[in-house]
Parts: sequence; structure tokens; C-alpha cells
Amino acid sequence: MNYKMMGKFIGNILMVEAVFMVPAMLISLWEKEFGAVVAFMWSLGAILVVAGGLRWLCRGSQKKFYAKEGLACVGLSWIAMSLLGCLPFFLSGVIPNFVDAVFEIVSGFTTTGASILPEVEGLPKGILYWRSFSHWLGGMGVLVFLLAISSTGGNGFTMHLLRAESPGPNVGKLVPKMKKTARILYLIYILLTVLDVIFLLLGGMSLFEAVCTAFGTVGTGGFGVRNDSIASYSPYIQNVCTVFMLLCGVNFSCFYLLLVRQFRSVFKDEELRLYLGMAAGSILLIVLNLRGFYDTLGETVRHAAFQVVTIMTTTGFATTDYELWPGFSKAIMLTLMILGASAGSTGGGFKCGRALLVLKSLHRSVRQVVHPQKVQVVRLNGHAVDEKVLQNTNAYLAAYVIVILLSFFLISVDGFSITTNLSAVLACFNNIGPGFEAVGPTCNFASYSMFSKLVLIWDMLAGRLEIFPILILLSRSTWKHR
Amino acid sequence: MNYKMMGKFIGNILMVEAVFMVPAMLISLWEKEFGAVVAFMWSLGAILVVAGGLRWLCRGSQKKFYAKEGLACVGLSWIAMSLLGCLPFFLSGVIPNFVDAVFEIVSGFTTTGASILPEVEGLPKGILYWRSFSHWLGGMGVLVFLLAISSTGGNGFTMHLLRAESPGPNVGKLVPKMKKTARILYLIYILLTVLDVIFLLLGGMSLFEAVCTAFGTVGTGGFGVRNDSIASYSPYIQNVCTVFMLLCGVNFSCFYLLLVRQFRSVFKDEELRLYLGMAAGSILLIVLNLRGFYDTLGETVRHAAFQVVTIMTTTGFATTDYELWPGFSKAIMLTLMILGASAGSTGGGFKCGRALLVLKSLHRSVRQVVHPQKVQVVRLNGHAVDEKVLQNTNAYLAAYVIVILLSFFLISVDGFSITTNLSAVLACFNNIGPGFEAVGPTCNFASYSMFSKLVLIWDMLAGRLEIFPILILLSRSTWKHR
Repeated sequence: MNYKMMGKFIGNILMVEAVFMVPAMLISLWEKEFGAVVAFMWSLGAILVVAGGLRWLCRGSQKKFYAKEGLACVGLSWIAMSLLGCLPFFLSGVIPNFVDAVFEIVSGFTTTGASILPEVEGLPKGILYWRSFSHWLGGMGVLVFLLAISSTGGNGFTMHLLRAESPGPNVGKLVPKMKKTARILYLIYILLTVLDVIFLLLGGMSLFEAVCTAFGTVGTGGFGVRNDSIASYSPYIQNVCTVFMLLCGVNFSCFYLLLVRQFRSVFKDEELRLYLGMAAGSILLIVLNLRGFYDTLGETVRHAAFQVVTIMTTTGFATTDYELWPGFSKAIMLTLMILGASAGSTGGGFKCGRALLVLKSLHRSVRQVVHPQKVQVVRLNGHAVDEKVLQNTNAYLAAYVIVILLSFFLISVDGFSITTNLSAVLACFNNIGPGFEAVGPTCNFASYSMFSKLVLIWDMLAGRLEIFPILILLSRSTWKHR
Repeated sequence: MNYKMMGKFIGNILMVEAVFMVPAMLISLWEKEFGAVVAFMWSLGAILVVAGGLRWLCRGSQKKFYAKEGLACVGLSWIAMSLLGCLPFFLSGVIPNFVDAVFEIVSGFTTTGASILPEVEGLPKGILYWRSFSHWLGGMGVLVFLLAISSTGGNGFTMHLLRAESPGPNVGKLVPKMKKTARILYLIYILLTVLDVIFLLLGGMSLFEAVCTAFGTVGTGGFGVRNDSIASYSPYIQNVCTVFMLLCGVNFSCFYLLLVRQFRSVFKDEELRLYLGMAAGSILLIVLNLRGFYDTLGETVRHAAFQVVTIMTTTGFATTDYELWPGFSKAIMLTLMILGASAGSTGGGFKCGRALLVLKSLHRSVRQVVHPQKVQVVRLNGHAVDEKVLQNTNAYLAAYVIVILLSFFLISVDGFSITTNLSAVLACFNNIGPGFEAVGPTCNFASYSMFSKLVLIWDMLAGRLEIFPILILLSRSTWKHR
């Protein structure tokens, strides 16, 4: 293992975190929340000491860097970022328990949006800003950000890291240079955020609420600044959120293709079609199932669309309590929880693109039995899919099932119902936020034990980083000297 | 497609079914249940007409036979057997609805044991015998039986069929000749059945009840002859059932190895170790979790062992209502429902052996990231596992997940709770029988709609035949002329 390079890199990541913590502190200063300001100052100090220490200890590193180091580096960066990023919550006394504070910030960075806070409206604004901002930073990925701005490492190095942090079965290079790809992704991301803020401001939101809500929306996170999430906002604002959540569940390379006017390839993208088709189909079925549940058809469509999109993109906002819906609608929601958004978006879950590959490779297995002598190729968007990618997708499915089963088993020690536990694991592992019953949209995760919270923290990280960067940290062979 | 050979084969299978229906009719005759006797006679007539017709229409077939025909043949045989095998239930008026009758017999043949009958104690004995016997016939497989006794086809032909009907990732030939393998399997099976009957008789059961219970136990089915399953029998009888269920969840090739005195390979069998370890671990955890739930430790151990083994081997008997257990114990039961028994046993589920392969192949994926240049081989019981088998196991996992999700989604139209629907699908697809809540051990499947019952019938067949023989019937390319 190239420990020096890894240490240096994690130091850089923490520097980025520190820089982004400053605005939160300034907001607290402006709002005269002096307790929070002190907490932010101590946190910043701790981050700078650790980051500086790592950079000093790991100076003069070799340049050689392998895939496993990329994965381990990503996993460790996220853990370090979370352990230090939760300090403002903990030191300000907003979340007096350290594990709870870690849960909250991991839920933020991984864009899960599962909370242990029963109330948020009375909290210091700086703390609320930092909580929502964590979604924005985690949504596109802090490493991707670092790559976009810095000059560290060569193309191979950045490729390993970008691959490890970006969601989806295969990372498309938009342009030959990875650094430029990272920049383009962030530019699109910033553009979407700014547009969202403008539309929210037009709906009469305050600037603070608009910015925080936009962070939660565009990062597909789910933390809000009101106790009832988005429910008490106007229908206009709810619809704006629906549209922007839907947009941010799309593979960002589609936006790039739109910008360079390759409309045809966007239109023909199979994952995009599946994603939009699933959303439309689910909304339609739920609207039919909900007849008579709300006063008007318009209200039904609005709530159905919002809830479908918020779960499918794994955001986790709420405008109504879907727990009260009939069983069929709830089953649709559970299925969407498992599927998730598109690869290469800020959303989590198994990803539509991966589901497509699994389906296609299963169909191939059947065709292979029928025509054993014929070579069968799996195609996506007209191109043959590499066997390696198919193999990895199947390995991912296996890991996905095993993590869910094991986590479900572990957290059931607390004695909650099967639906609660299963949906809690799905909500955390797929970075959604709310689940069903005791962790439904009107409840929170506070009642789980410390042990279960640690399991769920692990799930959130594993889900956001697509398992392997976290799994590799647990493998003996990673740490063995060759 | 070699339709003639397939038709002839299905005709033969139906002949076997007819022969086995005769004892049931004789029991009804002996008990003077004349309504049932008439129903059996009509059913026998119908089966003989169809079987004879098929054999006459399909005489003089080609000998060439491909894997896809083997799979399709197995799928169609089971469907034909079920459509005709349910006639005694339907014609005797015991189950007045035809779909319900099909549900009951498919539940029997697939050794599921899920019932739509609220009461069984008043039913004609011949009907009860036929209901329990269907477990025994389906447990080891009716095609395997036919291969064991007949002289149809060559070694390749029998291999294709045996592979398609036998559970598990790879069918071990015990001896070079497949026909002899089939015979050995059935001899072990008959021996276990006879031993079970003897032990049950020693516990004071009547011969009729002992035989029916043994069919349900050894076939890991779950249909009983009392309304409360096994609960009202003595602790001795409950323990006999536990032991025989546990034995029949073991890969039958282990028994063969014991018979030929290869103790070492049995002792070292990784699947057997996982299977017994899981059973012992689950019992221990549940006993700890159930402190104070029953009067004595002995009673706790007996109920825990019975319920763990009955669910793990996918039998589905009950001596107590595990619905009332605490959440952690229920979570263990749900996990066992998914895992299932050993490959090559009469039990269903995903199979321990397959779970081992999935885990090992996932571990390899991690090691491959760490050492990309090293060739990594997956080993089971010291032997390298063929890549083809690993690929098929992963394809099976994908199919397994997709079938469960899709079925869950379809049956949720009926509006039951998430836990009910999910466990109903698991209970049927894994051939267990009881699930949770509205389909728990004290309830039955009668309240589902016809549509949902058809979905669950499909699940039971797909689960017993391990998906592909049923999936292939739905693929267009199977039926296309080349």
C-alpha cells in the first residue's frame, strides 16, 4: 500500500472540508449563534490539525498508485470526513451523543437524509446550513471536487479515484481527460443548484431556506429546514422540488450530451427511458390506486409525483405520509426504494442502469440454454457490454443482497417489526432516508440502539460508495504486505 | 423442438401419477368414502385418456434431445401433473374452486405446504393421503423416479432431465450411470421414509397418520392431517419430526458417501457444515432470545429446534406460533426462509451450497481488486469450481431477486401488508409454506385473490424447479423454429 500518497490525499480532502465549513461558521456569526460559532471554530481547528499532520507526515510520496489504493483511499477519506465533519453537531450540543452526530453527518454526506433529530426548526442556522450542505458535497462527491480543482496525480490516479467514488456500473469519460470530466460534472451540478435556488426564490422562499432546500434537492439528500419536510410549502415549491429531484436522478452525462447537442443519443439512452418510464408508470398506478384519498385529482397527482420521485431518486423529502396509502401504493414505493436512480446521477440505490444489465444478462442466460452453440452478446444503447462489466454487476448484486440480509439480521436485535427493520436498512443502504412504520416519513431513526446505528452508518457509507471501497477496508489481503 | 419425444415423456410421467393415485383411491374405498372414490375414478380416467393420447400421438419420435427440451419437458410435465393431479380435490367437492385446487396440489408437488384449506380434520382419508403423498412424489422428483424405473433414453437424455429437476447449482453424479444415480437416490429416500414411519409408530401414532406425516416430513412438504399441524402431538413425535426434517435437508449424496464409508468427505463437506452450523446457531440464538417465553428450558429448546428446522428445510410444519416470538427471533426465521436447505436435498430455498458459492465469488471479486494480476480460483470442498457454475449461480441469484420483487409487486394488488406479501412470496417461492402475519403458521392463503393465487402457483413451480425450466417456457426463442 502506498500509505504516504493515501495520507496526503486524505489530508487534501480534509482541507476541502475545512474550507467549506467556513461559510457555515460565518452564517452562525451573522445570526449571532455564538455557541455554534465556537463549535465551528473548534471543529475547524481539529480538521486543520489532522489535515496538516497527515500532509506533513506523508510528504514526498511515491507516484505509483493501484486500484486497491484508490478504493481504500476513497473509503478512508469518507470515514475521516465524517468523523471530523460531525464535530459541529457534537460540540455545539445540538446532538449530545457522538454516535448520533456521526449518524447525522454520514446521513448528510451519503445524501441519505435519515435523521435522528425529532425537531429541526429551533436549531442554529449555521448548523442547519452545514447539515444541508453536506448533501451537496456528498452528492457529486468530494473527491471528484478535489480532482476538478487540483493538479494532484496523473490521469490513471484520478481515474481510479473517480471510478471508486462515482455511482454506476461503468464510469463514462465525457472527455478524454478525467480532470476535465470532473470539471464538467461540477459545472452542470452548480448550474442545476443555482437554477433550483432561483425557482425556489420565485416561489417566495427566503434565501436561506431556498439554498438549504436546493442542497437537499440537487444532492438528492433529503434534509430539510422544517419539521414537516416540504409539506407546509406551497404546491408551486413542491412541484419545483419534484422537477429538480427528477433531473438530478438522471445520469449527468445526459446533460453533457444535451449541452454538446447530441440529442439523439440522449433520446435513445435505455437507462433514461427506463428511469422516466418507471417514474411515469409508478405515478400513474399510484394515482389510480389513490382515488378518493385526496380532495382533487390535482392534489393526488402532485403528492403521487412528489413521493414517487423523492423515493426513486433516493432523496427522501415528504409532502404527505405515504404510510397511510393503500397496500399496493406502498408496495410500489418499496420496489422503487430498491431500484433507485440512474447511474452517474447524485441518487443512490441499485441504479436503473445496473438493473437493466442484470435483466439483460439473465435474458442471455435463458437464450444460452436454448441456443448453446451461439455466442450471445449483451447490448446496451446499441453497444456490446464488456463481460467484465457484466461480471462486476452480478458481483454487485450479490454484495447488495448480502449486505441487506446481514444488516437486517443485525439491527433486528432491537426488536422492531420486520417491515421497520427491512425498510430501515433499505432506506440507509440505498441512501433514501425514510422507510416504513417506525422509520416512516413522519418518524426518525433515534429509537434504534447505538449498535444498530453503527450498522446503519456502515450501510449508508457502503451504499453511497457502492460497497467495494468499504468492503475492501475489511479484507485482510488489502493490508497484507506483499 | 422434439415435440414427439417431449409428448411421449409427459405421457409417461402422467402414467406414473395414475399408478400412484390408485392407493389413495383404495384408502377411500376402504374407509367407505364413496364420493371421494368416484372423484378418484373420474380423475384416473382423465389422466389415462390424456396420457394414452399423448403416447399415441407422439409415437415414433426422434432420439435427438437438447438441454432446452429437457428444461421445457420438466416444466411442462409438472404443469400437466398439477392440472390433472388436482382433479380429486375438485371433483370430490373438497375444494370447489378449480384454481384453489390447483394451488393445493402445486403446493403439494412442490413440497411447499401452503394451504387454502382452513380445516383438514374432517376431510376424506383418501384425499388427505393423496394430499400428503404429493409431497413425497414431488420431494425427490417424479422425473427422477421415472428415470430410476424405466429404460427411456440414453445417458445424455437422463442427464438433461435430472439436471433440470434436481435442486442445487451442480448435480453430482454419484456413479457414472445417471439411471443408477437416480435409483440410489430413491433407495435412500425410501429408507428414510420407512425409518420415519417406524419411529412415528413407536410414538403411538396410527399407521395412517404416521405415513402421511412421514410423507410431509421426508419430502420437506408440510401438509399435515391435523388442523394444528404437529402441535397437538407428543414431544417425542415432535422431536422425531425435527430429526427427520433435518436429515432430509442434507444433500443426499452425503448419505451415499456414508453408505460407501467415505466418512472423511462427508465430515469435510463445506455445505453440510454451513447447513448444520446455521441450524445450531439459529436454535441457540432463538433459545437465548426466548428466555421466559415458555415454561421450561426443555420446551424452549424443543420449539426453537422444531421451528428453525421446519423453516430452514422449507418443510413448514408448526408446533407453536412463531408470530408471537420477539422481533429478533422472527428476523432469524425470515433470514432462514431465504437461505433454505442444502442442494441435492428435498428442501427448497436458495440453498446453502449456492449461498456459499455466492459468498466465495464475492470474496474473489474483492481479492481481484487487491491483486488484479493474480488468477483467482474459487474452491469448494478443496476442488476448483468451474467458472460456468459460478456464472450460473450468479444468474440464479439475479433470477431469484427478480422473481421475488416482481411477485411481491403483483400480489400487493390485494392490499395486504408488506410483511404479509413479502413473506407469502418467500414462503411459496422457497417452498416453505407458512409466512408471517396474514399467511403466518396459524393462517392460510385462502384470502388472496385468484390473480394472486396464480402468481403464487407460478412461484411455487418456479421455486421447486429452480426457475429456468419455468422461465424457458415464457421465452419466445424456445418456441421459434430454426
